[in-house]
Amino acid sequence: MYNNLLALRAKGTPNMDLADLFKLAEQPDVISFAGGFPDPDWFIEEIEEITMDVLRNYKDIALQYSPVAGLSTLRKYISERMRKQNMNINPSNVLISSGSLQGLDLLCKIFLDPDDYVIIEAPTYLGAISTFESYEANTVAIPCDEHGIIIEQLDEFLQNTKIKPKFIYVIPTFQNPSGRVWSLERRKALLEICDKYQLPIIEDNAYGELRCSGMEVPTIKSLDSKELVIYLGTFSKIFCPGIRLGWVAGPEEIIEKLILFKQNSDQTSSSLSQLLVLEAGKKGLIEKQININIENLKLKRDVTINTLEKHFSGKAKWVVSEGGYYTWVEIDKKINTYDLLKKAVGDYKVAYVAGPSFFPNKNGGENCLRLCYSLPKPTKLEEGIKRLAKVFSI
Amino acid sequence: MYNNLLALRAKGTPNMDLADLFKLAEQPDVISFAGGFPDPDWFIEEIEEITMDVLRNYKDIALQYSPVAGLSTLRKYISERMRKQNMNINPSNVLISSGSLQGLDLLCKIFLDPDDYVIIEAPTYLGAISTFESYEANTVAIPCDEHGIIIEQLDEFLQNTKIKPKFIYVIPTFQNPSGRVWSLERRKALLEICDKYQLPIIEDNAYGELRCSGMEVPTIKSLDSKELVIYLGTFSKIFCPGIRLGWVAGPEEIIEKLILFKQNSDQTSSSLSQLLVLEAGKKGLIEKQININIENLKLKRDVTINTLEKHFSGKAKWVVSEGGYYTWVEIDKKINTYDLLKKAVGDYKVAYVAGPSFFPNKNGGENCLRLCYSLPKPTKLEEGIKRLAKVFSI
Repeated sequence: MYNNLLALRAKGTPNMDLADLFKLAEQPDVISFAGGFPDPDWFIEEIEEITMDVLRNYKDIALQYSPVAGLSTLRKYISERMRKQNMNINPSNVLISSGSLQGLDLLCKIFLDPDDYVIIEAPTYLGAISTFESYEANTVAIPCDEHGIIIEQLDEFLQNTKIKPKFIYVIPTFQNPSGRVWSLERRKALLEICDKYQLPIIEDNAYGELRCSGMEVPTIKSLDSKELVIYLGTFSKIFCPGIRLGWVAGPEEIIEKLILFKQNSDQTSSSLSQLLVLEAGKKGLIEKQININIENLKLKRDVTINTLEKHFSGKAKWVVSEGGYYTWVEIDKKINTYDLLKKAVGDYKVAYVAGPSFFPNKNGGENCLRLCYSLPKPTKLEEGIKRLAKVFSI
Repeated sequence: MYNNLLALRAKGTPNMDLADLFKLAEQPDVISFAGGFPDPDWFIEEIEEITMDVLRNYKDIALQYSPVAGLSTLRKYISERMRKQNMNINPSNVLISSGSLQGLDLLCKIFLDPDDYVIIEAPTYLGAISTFESYEANTVAIPCDEHGIIIEQLDEFLQNTKIKPKFIYVIPTFQNPSGRVWSLERRKALLEICDKYQLPIIEDNAYGELRCSGMEVPTIKSLDSKELVIYLGTFSKIFCPGIRLGWVAGPEEIIEKLILFKQNSDQTSSSLSQLLVLEAGKKGLIEKQININIENLKLKRDVTINTLEKHFSGKAKWVVSEGGYYTWVEIDKKINTYDLLKKAVGDYKVAYVAGPSFFPNKNGGENCLRLCYSLPKPTKLEEGIKRLAKVFSI
């Protein structure tokens, strides 16, 4: 019975990659470079203390429904934090979401009719690709080099196309999956071109605060004087993911539309989670958590890069990420990392995400893979990369 | 710029009722019979203790991402709990959702294309109506009497229509907004007719465990031997809403589809919330919370009904609810409760939800209102109903 009743978007076999990743990470003997999980050892001890404070002082609020847009105190805290980062954001520009992916989902809901077009970087976050697919949208992939999206190709596409894309989705800092950072010039050029074509920019900045080395580059939002940018933030990587809390910061007219659809999805985000973040923020513990994460990521990145040098040198290229969770490895010889994944996990007990998963219709990156180095311990990172060399017969 | 780029579903002025309710409840001088909020005084003291236990013993899990479908331990707990309530549910039949409204949202996502049809009771939960609207679906409202939906009218519609509705959405126990309970006969008749027309039933049982008086009636799911029923559960009313946790229980093929779309919405529900519920469940604290809620609801219902007797007798009819949060008042004279709401809140400082909000396109219930008696203290309930008598010049 049910099969005949499904909506178009639910027919066929959609992208199971993300769900599969989450399952893989549960097997204890697999060294997983797959899911973007923080190392639980990083989580600050003070979480117990602040949780107690919240339940003692604000139990009535913590266990009750909160307003659809989020607690006004948290919206204020986030806007103040963003202002310190040179982004012109007021509390009314902020919607609290259940993770940043919900922010993206709600943005799709207000922008995308079936067959609409979305522009993305290639490669890009696979969760975003499958979210766009779930809205039956088409994705136009614009290639990137080491400085970011290739502006000329974007311009050429926008100039010649008859379609009106709804937005461009980008992750300019510590990009997922490539680990790269867009140059300041590319950021400015993107703003210019999006202003010219009146194309909204969704800037996903999940990793931007996790810089381990190199020079800070301003967010695109901080360069935006024309409300072209809708910013996605998350506490998953700067605090912890288990409480499912993120935010959207953008023009009030957009936030108001998002509120309407948030009310019809999960109604409100967890009040307990909201108060935990607020309490942590007030006590400087988010900054503390960020510093811990950076210190540990730096160590793990260095181990990863050093071990790649040792086992992959001359046979592959990789990105020396200046921050975030990921590096992107491009194997010199012709292989298909997607096809090899089963063997990697089954025979060699090592997991990664194959390059094609980060391209629409898995069209691209066949000889590439994303390594997420945040979760395994340093000795496991070394052992895992050794195993990968065997998987790819390097 | 943005206005031209919006999706069809985001154009126009959608139903703001629920967001407005949540705002109303924040004004301290208003006696609110509006939002379905529990009284925070009910929340069990042990919440502090179990939260500490969770953070001490399972911090690594509590602050980390959980699997998309939810923690396997919680899925197991929920399935065992449902089996005790005579529903044939295994862990693989359960998806953990961020509140039961997310469960409904995801069901809409897998079932509804634009212009599809959904059958509802009239009146019904306004959050469900606006969720169906957000999927650009049409709703067919079948009237109810004191025993539940009028089966003959449903049969007549299904027999004569050329359209194929995707599902019927019902709240058979302590219905929102009416407070009514469907008779066993109506439940069986619904199953029969839905089997005949191969129409899935979404049974929303948010309030079913909060019985204050009268005889237990089995859930439709417990009478279902043909996997016709998809069950929506929530911890909002039997534990607390602030942690945003509910579940969907249904056929595995449906759960698997839901997982795919959950992964593209908020990815996973809060791990901390999941562990809190699990820990509370193991220690019998959900049952304790239910008993506290029932005891308090009984008291507040009695005050509400007695005060209605005093001020509304002979001028209105109301439902003497056997459980849940609501009673439904039908004023004898011709008034429009929707139009009077502004005056009620502004001039008389009393809030309710107007009857029309519970009908598609606000078409019906003009002389009716929903009173939610869960939140105000008993003296406020009395004072609030006195004020309502003035609002309606009774």
